[in-house]
Amino acid sequence: MKKWSTPNLHFVKLNDDVLKNRIQTNSEKTIPTNIEKCQETGRIDSFKLEWKEGKPNCPHVFWDSDFAKVLEGLAYDLILFPSEKKKKLLNQYVDLIISAQQEDGYLNTHFTQVEPDKRWTNIFNHHELYCAGHLMEAAVAHFHATGQRNFLDCMCRYADYIATVFGPASNQKHAYPGHEEIELALCRLADATNNPKYLKLAKYFIDERGKKPNYFVTNENLPEEALENRQMHKPVREQHKAIGHAVRALYLYSGMADTAERTNDTELFAACETLWQSVTERNMYITGGVGSTRIGEAIAKDYYLPNVTAYAETCASIAAAFFALRMLNITGKATYADILEREIYNGILSGVSLDGVKFFYENPLINDQMISNQNHNKFGHLRQPWFQTSCCPTNICRFCPQIGSMIFSCNENSIAVHIPAASEGDFQLKDGKLNFKISGKYPYDGAITIDILEASGNVDLYFRIPDWCNNQYTYQLKDNDYDAPIENGYLVFKRSWEKGDQLNINLDMKVQCMRSNSKLPYNAGKIALKRGPLVYALESIDNNYDISQLKIPTNQEFTLTDAKDLPAGTKAICGKAILENVSTEGKLYSSNADITQQEVSFTAIPEALWQNRGKSSMYVWVRSC
Amino acid sequence: MKKWSTPNLHFVKLNDDVLKNRIQTNSEKTIPTNIEKCQETGRIDSFKLEWKEGKPNCPHVFWDSDFAKVLEGLAYDLILFPSEKKKKLLNQYVDLIISAQQEDGYLNTHFTQVEPDKRWTNIFNHHELYCAGHLMEAAVAHFHATGQRNFLDCMCRYADYIATVFGPASNQKHAYPGHEEIELALCRLADATNNPKYLKLAKYFIDERGKKPNYFVTNENLPEEALENRQMHKPVREQHKAIGHAVRALYLYSGMADTAERTNDTELFAACETLWQSVTERNMYITGGVGSTRIGEAIAKDYYLPNVTAYAETCASIAAAFFALRMLNITGKATYADILEREIYNGILSGVSLDGVKFFYENPLINDQMISNQNHNKFGHLRQPWFQTSCCPTNICRFCPQIGSMIFSCNENSIAVHIPAASEGDFQLKDGKLNFKISGKYPYDGAITIDILEASGNVDLYFRIPDWCNNQYTYQLKDNDYDAPIENGYLVFKRSWEKGDQLNINLDMKVQCMRSNSKLPYNAGKIALKRGPLVYALESIDNNYDISQLKIPTNQEFTLTDAKDLPAGTKAICGKAILENVSTEGKLYSSNADITQQEVSFTAIPEALWQNRGKSSMYVWVRSC
Repeated sequence: MKKWSTPNLHFVKLNDDVLKNRIQTNSEKTIPTNIEKCQETGRIDSFKLEWKEGKPNCPHVFWDSDFAKVLEGLAYDLILFPSEKKKKLLNQYVDLIISAQQEDGYLNTHFTQVEPDKRWTNIFNHHELYCAGHLMEAAVAHFHATGQRNFLDCMCRYADYIATVFGPASNQKHAYPGHEEIELALCRLADATNNPKYLKLAKYFIDERGKKPNYFVTNENLPEEALENRQMHKPVREQHKAIGHAVRALYLYSGMADTAERTNDTELFAACETLWQSVTERNMYITGGVGSTRIGEAIAKDYYLPNVTAYAETCASIAAAFFALRMLNITGKATYADILEREIYNGILSGVSLDGVKFFYENPLINDQMISNQNHNKFGHLRQPWFQTSCCPTNICRFCPQIGSMIFSCNENSIAVHIPAASEGDFQLKDGKLNFKISGKYPYDGAITIDILEASGNVDLYFRIPDWCNNQYTYQLKDNDYDAPIENGYLVFKRSWEKGDQLNINLDMKVQCMRSNSKLPYNAGKIALKRGPLVYALESIDNNYDISQLKIPTNQEFTLTDAKDLPAGTKAICGKAILENVSTEGKLYSSNADITQQEVSFTAIPEALWQNRGKSSMYVWVRSC
Repeated sequence: MKKWSTPNLHFVKLNDDVLKNRIQTNSEKTIPTNIEKCQETGRIDSFKLEWKEGKPNCPHVFWDSDFAKVLEGLAYDLILFPSEKKKKLLNQYVDLIISAQQEDGYLNTHFTQVEPDKRWTNIFNHHELYCAGHLMEAAVAHFHATGQRNFLDCMCRYADYIATVFGPASNQKHAYPGHEEIELALCRLADATNNPKYLKLAKYFIDERGKKPNYFVTNENLPEEALENRQMHKPVREQHKAIGHAVRALYLYSGMADTAERTNDTELFAACETLWQSVTERNMYITGGVGSTRIGEAIAKDYYLPNVTAYAETCASIAAAFFALRMLNITGKATYADILEREIYNGILSGVSLDGVKFFYENPLINDQMISNQNHNKFGHLRQPWFQTSCCPTNICRFCPQIGSMIFSCNENSIAVHIPAASEGDFQLKDGKLNFKISGKYPYDGAITIDILEASGNVDLYFRIPDWCNNQYTYQLKDNDYDAPIENGYLVFKRSWEKGDQLNINLDMKVQCMRSNSKLPYNAGKIALKRGPLVYALESIDNNYDISQLKIPTNQEFTLTDAKDLPAGTKAICGKAILENVSTEGKLYSSNADITQQEVSFTAIPEALWQNRGKSSMYVWVRSC
């Protein structure tokens, strides 16, 4: 049932100013910093299994997952920026991890050292399967990067052991992860090893989930009310509303999509489609953020999307991108790429500072010292060097280097361009070869040129028409009036390409005043500025007044300028606005307030870049007039 | 330094439709229900001192205060509605309480039974002095209602004992309440007994508060950061910003005002004035609510007044009324009566249902299932029969019967009418006597008639010109063109009154569109409707559409109607509004949304009456145009 696959990272090279620079910073700063933090906090030494009661740095239940994600990132990074030194370091860490595996295949530094008699006794809360999943993903990445099987084999032994513990037999636990993630990891392990038994275990976890009587109520004494946060309140095929812990939910849905595709399970895939709609049509911020409340880090009720208290965890945007990528490859439909792109350029990149060493866990859409009580954001609205629960920074480590592979998909005879960032692709497919170069200033300019550098055979080129251009686009094949049909939201160029062929595409990138559905009360009377795939925000550092008192007229010609103190090429949106001042003679409230209006200029920058120039208030949604 | 005193309840009789009915319901429903709840939960039997480890209903540290407040209410209620049965019941409870007093004077059912060796070891958290204060207030009320001294004497013994524990001597604790309240109670005990030693103890608690080194840091191991929530971060005379737990703060400020007045301490009084300004000019909701965050039930930073997550505890409005009343009597300035009135008609009465048996702990200014996540208000936005921490219902019990005494003040030769609700006053002052009757439909009508029923000597009559009438008022002494001077915001009628004299006053009560100071970002572009002292709110039960999408034009003639399914005489405000609909074709966000506007009618009811006709969303602040 699969339409496309994500290509190997080896075949793509990014040349653009936005993604390439972020990936490079991730390589040079974010990964090294995270390794350092893992070292400092004991997460690495934990694998030496030398911790004893009374020693510092007691291994925490989720520690293994953090270091696993950093290693996964390091492995992809090795593909992008090969270095013997890096490879040696990676292998050294891999050897350390392998050395922590127990005779029976078990590998978890917390339970092995801290609670050796408590394995699998608190599956609801204690992250064993989650850590296993991330170690498996790291092993797959290590295998792809180095061709070495040692880590992969180690994880196969662990997975084999897990398959003895969990399963339908009467002497097995009929349980499934309290923090989903291993489902998608097992699918990747099955792919890398070409062994369907890991897929079978993924399918068991997915099918067992939410069955009655509930394992966790019966065996771990959890109240029924707790189940919803972990998506175990009913079988996944019966879940129509995305609910509960956002990251868990989106990892689960990704694993469901993987499993549905590999087992041709159309019913399970239908559940994925329903949950996709629930997430994207009723529970997603304009930035791609998911998770509207700190309580349970959860997706709450439909259309409950407050801006100030938005949770929108960086990890949730990463997990949403994974879910989108899977749905995109299965269906070939551009609508999934629209969300993938939204996540990459907005919800995910906002999670890390431009210098690569500070991180947001939560990504509110409005941040103002006069609106947010200090307690609303325990991190004080500033990106932090790390967290005690450092899932987000370590997730950035492994997400960034994978971006190159996400902008394209391919199959036997076609290549899809999802995100036309400046790049080179060199694809040898079953039916032909295509080596091409994409030029332009995307995402800041809608003019895109694709030059064919080398070609043979017949390769169809699919080019996504983004939702945001509202069907305002032009294209031109050099010296040719080829009329490309539209298929699933993609322009399709079916032809024998030749070296020297050039395709020019122009996507309309006028500034857009986005409005919310009336069902979102928090955004009533407000607009968000958007241009191309980028959501914009007003920071007080550019707008030296109280932004809450600003109204932006929508019927104006906005202009673009080079954003101040942001990377070269960053475009700011400028325009006129009305600043209201309500004078109440010092009183809080007045029946005869003097309201004055002053015309001012405003400047908006890409939301993903906010809080990179010092402390600042920030508004994505602003009053309009 | 005192200008006025609050008269004895015996001298005032309310005849109006609003306050009188609430007081009667309090008598017939609220107090009996609260006695029942105290009985059910063990709060009454706790005074039998029969609790043992393993028995149910383990006495909690704050229980004594709850029952004390109910008894205080019962005592005032006995003055208003005398009954032998009620008096017998009251005396029976009083005897029970007295029986729980220990040899040394100590009286606390938790510590006596549950932790007998822990007296005064956790003054920061464990409410011993707070409970003592409420028992003292109950004893004073009992003394005023019955003339019996037994409870008063019991409390004097307790206060005497407390004065041995706390004080400046080296063998005494240099501590002060973790939950303020006893300061004002000791002042009342000093008044009732005419014994200044209790005032001295109040002054000790106030002066010791916040001194360095901090008692609680040194002796109870509290971190410095915890001190602000309890107003002990610095000496009270140096506190310029109202901060921390709202109820604690306002009880403290009330006690400071009492102490300053009785000791002629102008420096301490200046601190009260500064803190008053901080509370009312920078930290108060339009309803009189104080406390903007659930975290620490606290006043947060200046101008941080979110509507949806407003805490605005009913107790905080009661405490603010107490503070206002004290400042009013000391200074004679109408500005304090403005706030007193705002609290009574809005912030306090919203705390109890019209049937008198359901209560709000928190009083948000916007409540909408689409805006409030269920978790924002743990009580589901419905008034509740009681709470585990039932300070608010029991505070209502004792506040309501005192309202009559708060609408007037008097001194040797003058009477002040603060709130001209229909009523009768019969005052024998040093310089004369005045028996008068106020007629009208206040607070729904600004036409007020004062008839002199009996008079002798020279009594000056002060009549407050409320802030909300913006100086739009007329007055007429029957057959007389008396030109009344204004003093401290009061019209002053200095004359020899005669039986048959009539004074007609008209206060302008046009509907007002209130706006917030620009410093309040949550209310930008919004208005609140107000008429006279009443803040109005839109409930979905009257307005069958999504109120968040409504815009009210301010330049219109509003009309008044009888409110549906609310007490006779309740006036609703009606008008035209624009209902916006943003159609995004089912998407959450759109750049080409279709915005349609529909003219609709709206109906607003007094905010204090919301949620009396079933579940409903409610908005005090609405968008304007």
